Amino acid sequence: MTAGSRQRAAGRNVLSRAAIIAVGSEMLTPSRIDTNSLFITEQLNLLGIEVAFKSIIGDDRAELEHAVRSGLARVDLLVCCGGLGPTDDDLTRPVVAEVLNRPLVEDETITARIRARFQGRGLEMPAINRRQAMVPVGARLLENSNGTAPGLWIEEGERIVLLLPGPPRELKPMMTSVADGALRERSPGLSLVRRVIKITGRSESHTEEAVQPLYAEWSRAAIPISATILASLGQIELHLSARAASREAAEAALETAVEHVRAVMGMHAYSTDGRALEEVLGAMLTERGLTIGVAESCTGGLITSRLTDVPGSSRYVERGVVSYSNDAKIELLGVLPELIAAHGAVSDPVASAMAEGIRTAARVDIGVGVTGIAGPGGGTPEKPVGTVSVAAVSPAGSRVRTFRFVGGREMVKFQASQAALDMVRRMLLEP
Amino acid sequence: MTAGSRQRAAGRNVLSRAAIIAVGSEMLTPSRIDTNSLFITEQLNLLGIEVAFKSIIGDDRAELEHAVRSGLARVDLLVCCGGLGPTDDDLTRPVVAEVLNRPLVEDETITARIRARFQGRGLEMPAINRRQAMVPVGARLLENSNGTAPGLWIEEGERIVLLLPGPPRELKPMMTSVADGALRERSPGLSLVRRVIKITGRSESHTEEAVQPLYAEWSRAAIPISATILASLGQIELHLSARAASREAAEAALETAVEHVRAVMGMHAYSTDGRALEEVLGAMLTERGLTIGVAESCTGGLITSRLTDVPGSSRYVERGVVSYSNDAKIELLGVLPELIAAHGAVSDPVASAMAEGIRTAARVDIGVGVTGIAGPGGGTPEKPVGTVSVAAVSPAGSRVRTFRFVGGREMVKFQASQAALDMVRRMLLEP
Repeated sequence: MTAGSRQRAAGRNVLSRAAIIAVGSEMLTPSRIDTNSLFITEQLNLLGIEVAFKSIIGDDRAELEHAVRSGLARVDLLVCCGGLGPTDDDLTRPVVAEVLNRPLVEDETITARIRARFQGRGLEMPAINRRQAMVPVGARLLENSNGTAPGLWIEEGERIVLLLPGPPRELKPMMTSVADGALRERSPGLSLVRRVIKITGRSESHTEEAVQPLYAEWSRAAIPISATILASLGQIELHLSARAASREAAEAALETAVEHVRAVMGMHAYSTDGRALEEVLGAMLTERGLTIGVAESCTGGLITSRLTDVPGSSRYVERGVVSYSNDAKIELLGVLPELIAAHGAVSDPVASAMAEGIRTAARVDIGVGVTGIAGPGGGTPEKPVGTVSVAAVSPAGSRVRTFRFVGGREMVKFQASQAALDMVRRMLLEP
Repeated sequence: MTAGSRQRAAGRNVLSRAAIIAVGSEMLTPSRIDTNSLFITEQLNLLGIEVAFKSIIGDDRAELEHAVRSGLARVDLLVCCGGLGPTDDDLTRPVVAEVLNRPLVEDETITARIRARFQGRGLEMPAINRRQAMVPVGARLLENSNGTAPGLWIEEGERIVLLLPGPPRELKPMMTSVADGALRERSPGLSLVRRVIKITGRSESHTEEAVQPLYAEWSRAAIPISATILASLGQIELHLSARAASREAAEAALETAVEHVRAVMGMHAYSTDGRALEEVLGAMLTERGLTIGVAESCTGGLITSRLTDVPGSSRYVERGVVSYSNDAKIELLGVLPELIAAHGAVSDPVASAMAEGIRTAARVDIGVGVTGIAGPGGGTPEKPVGTVSVAAVSPAGSRVRTFRFVGGREMVKFQASQAALDMVRRMLLEP
C-alpha cells in the first residue's frame, strides 16, 4: 500500500486493505477448515475494504507472532479470530500485546461480567477465566452477547487490530456490530458489492458462451463489473462485483448487469440474489397460494428436507413420502404394480404415477415424483447409475423427464433434487 | 525450527515442517474457501510432516511474492496450489521463479504433451497454453493426468517447493503420487496419524470432564497422544493424533487411546473411525437384518435423507413419511385426531403414535417418529422453538423423549435428526 492510495476522512486514516488471521491448531488438520473468514470478508467488502490475504495459524506462539507482525506491516486492518479462550492454548491476546509492545492489564468490568455470566447459570467463575479479562492497554472492548470472551478493538497508529472470538455464534453478532459502528467510520467510502446469480439446467460451457460477450461491455462501464463463473454439479454460479462511491451506486450497476444476464440466460437463471432454489420456489408457492407434496425414491427425503429448510414452509408443504420400496410406491401412492412390471421402477410412467399419487392422496396442488438409481450399486447397461426420472403434476399440466447425472451417490441425490425443484419452478413460470 | 531438531537420512535433509499457500482471488471473496489444503495436509501428516501454517493469497504478484519468500524462510517444504493455468492471472510459476532467482525456460516436452492433449480432442493448442510449459530451471516435472498444467518439484538447497494445480481432480492424484514417491524419501519417518471419535448425547463439559484425566496418561505414554475437543450443536468430536516410527505403531497407540475413551464415554461415543452416525446405524441394521421406517414432521425428511446417503441403504430403509400437516399424521400414520387434540401435535404421545404408525404401515422392524418446532415461528411459552419429541419403537421395546434444542431452524433439524438416529442406535445396543 502506498501512501498515495490512502484517503483521509475526518482527519483519520481510511482503512482499505485487510488481512484475516484465523487462529487454532484444529484448522491445520485434515478435518477442519476456517469458515469465519467468509463472514468477515462479506462484512468488510460491504464497507469497501478488501481482504488482501488470509493466514491460518496454529496455537503456536512463534508462528502467531510472525503472522501478526507481518500482517501489520502489510495491511491497515488486521482481523484475528480465535484464541481468546481461557486456556494456555489461547495465545491471541498475549501475542498481540507483545507485538504491539503494550502490557496486559486486568479489566475489572470484564471479570465482573464473566463472573455474572457464570452466576446466572448457578456456577462459580473458574479462576482460569480471569485470563479473558486481561487486555492490552488502550484496547476498546467489544461486547460478546453469546460468550465470555470480549472482542478487542486496538488502534495502533493509523492501523487497527481487531480481535474476535472463534465460535461463529459469538463472532457474527460482534463483527456485524463493529462493521456498523467503528469500522464504518473508517471505511473508504467505496463500497464493494457482490451479487451471485445461480443457474441450473445449463452446462458451464453454455453459460460461458452466453455470458462471455457481456464481459467487454461490463469492463467499459462507468462502474465496471467483474465476473467469475463457478461451476459445480447441478448448479452454476456467476459472481458479479462492483465498486462504487456508494453501496447504492454499486448495487444499481450490478442490477443492470443482472438484467443483462437475465436477458441471455432467461429462466435458466433461477436466483439473482443468492437465494437457494428451495427459497425461490417457496416464495413462488406462497405468492400463488399453492401447496406441494413430494414422492421421493432415490432422493430419499432430500427434496422435502430442502423445501422444509425454508422458514414458513409449513404453509405450502403438506407432506412427503419416501417410497424406497416398490411396496411403498404401491401402497402410499397407488402406483399400479403392472406399471412397475412393464416399465421398471425407474421410468417416466412410474415417476408420473408417483407424482399423481401424492397429489391425490395429499390433496395438494402440485405433486412431484422422483425415482432413480443413486448408486453405487443398482445400475444396468440400459439404466446406469445416475439415471433419474422426475415428474411434476399441477392443475395446469404435467411434465416428466429422465436425466443422466454423473458423480457419486450424494451428488446424484443433489442433482436430482435440483432437477425436481427446478421443474416445478419452470412449470409455474411457463405453465 | 532449530538445526538440532533435524534428522538426516541418506545424506539429505529430512522435511518436517510444511506450509501451504493456496493461490486464487476467488478464495478471498465471501463465497469460496480453500479446501485443497485438507487433502494435502492429510497426505503430509501420514508422512510425519506437519503443517505449520496456511496462507490464502489472491492473484496478486506482490502478495504472492511476499508469501513465498516468507514461507521459504520458515519451513522446509512449501506447497503452493493453484495459479498454474495459462492466463495472465496465473502467477505462481513466474513468482516462484523470481523468488528462487531462476530463469523460466520453455520445456519442449510439456509443449508437446499439451499440444497432443488438445489434438486428442480435435483442437489446436491455443498459443496462450505455451505459458504452461515455462518452468524454472532445474525443476522436476510432475505429470498431470487430468489437465494441461504439470506440477513442479523444485529443490532449493535443503528446502523443497512443490507446485500443484488448483482443480482438485488434478491436484489429488498428483499429490498422492508425490507423497508415495519423492516426498516419502525425504519424510521424517515418523508418521503422524489421526483418529476422530464422535460423541452425541453428552455436553461438551461432560465430555471434557470425562476425558481430561486421560490426557496426563496419554502425554506420558511411549507414543504420546495429543487430543483436541471440537464441539458443535448435536455432535462433539474428539481428535486424537500420534506420531510414531511407523504408521502401524501410531495406529496401535491410537487404538489404545480409543479404548480409553470408550471406557469413559461408553455408548456416547458412537463412532471411533470418523464414520457418520447414519453409517454406524446403517451397519448395525444391516448386520442384524433389521428394517426401518421414519415418520418425520419438523425434520422434514432429513432423517430419511441421511439414512439414504449411505450406499446399500435400500436393504434397510423401506419408506419414510414426512407428515408436516395434522391430516398427514392422521391419514398416513393412523395417529388419532383426539390424541393430537389432547396433547398437541408436538408431544410424546403423538411422536410415539407416529413411530407405531409407520412401523405398522411399512411392516418394518423399527419405527421412528419425530415431531417438533423447528422455528423461527410456531413456538409457545410452554413449547418454545426447539422443542422436539422423538420416539422409536422396535420389537424389543420403545422409547420416547422430548428435547429442547437451541440454534436456528437448520440446526434444530440437524440436532433432532442426530437424536433420532442415536435413539435407535442405543435401543439396538441396550434393548
